[in-house]
Amino acid sequence: MQRIPILKMGPFLLVTIQVDLHDRLVMALQDDLTNMVGKTGARGVLLDISSLDIVDSFIGRMLGGIAAVTRLMDAQTVVVGMQPAVAITMVELGLDLPGVITALNVEKGMDMLRSRLRLLPETAHDTRAEV
Amino acid sequence: MQRIPILKMGPFLLVTIQVDLHDRLVMALQDDLTNMVGKTGARGVLLDISSLDIVDSFIGRMLGGIAAVTRLMDAQTVVVGMQPAVAITMVELGLDLPGVITALNVEKGMDMLRSRLRLLPETAHDTRAEV
Repeated sequence: MQRIPILKMGPFLLVTIQVDLHDRLVMALQDDLTNMVGKTGARGVLLDISSLDIVDSFIGRMLGGIAAVTRLMDAQTVVVGMQPAVAITMVELGLDLPGVITALNVEKGMDMLRSRLRLLPETAHDTRAEV
Repeated sequence: MQRIPILKMGPFLLVTIQVDLHDRLVMALQDDLTNMVGKTGARGVLLDISSLDIVDSFIGRMLGGIAAVTRLMDAQTVVVGMQPAVAITMVELGLDLPGVITALNVEKGMDMLRSRLRLLPETAHDTRAEV
């Protein structure tokens, strides 16, 4: 079965969603993410949805579910890269992303996570990872 | 047409390849990457191929092509995340990745780019980007 790759970047995990999401893929992603959070001790998860042309209620629930699961494991999830048209459509449809934090792009999402978690800048983490 | 998203991370661009690559998608990726390098002045490109189960001669040529194009635009390309089985199969098939630099994962690829390009650690870039 196809899996969505999870990249470790310092204290964060990065997931770029490029394919159409269906139930089993989302379940697999949630499994993989919780495993990775447990294994790496990651403090934050960045979900990039810049290639999604639509965010419907299913995807919204899925994003909220991932955020809730990682929160229980002490990792904050930030959804980044939403296309302007997607945001407009969501508001028009009356959809919301309850419990989900969003940021404009990956860089801003990382900055947000760093300040929320009061983490040191990435260099300090790199150094510690090397030791 | 489907497009592969390109994420800007400080002075680098990150591309996670998750879908089957075909000629037109590769062409589009090369176009998008050169545009992004031009627009952002990125100094490095990280191509994550951790979800590829096979790297054949077509994909090998494609990776080499992207590396050559970005090099002409003064950006270094590093291919990261190759699965061990993929590496073994490539050697068995006598395939090589001429002109392509590889690293174990995204973090090591970024470290490699930073030291090759003698870039300051990412914090300095973040700060400058904020100004």
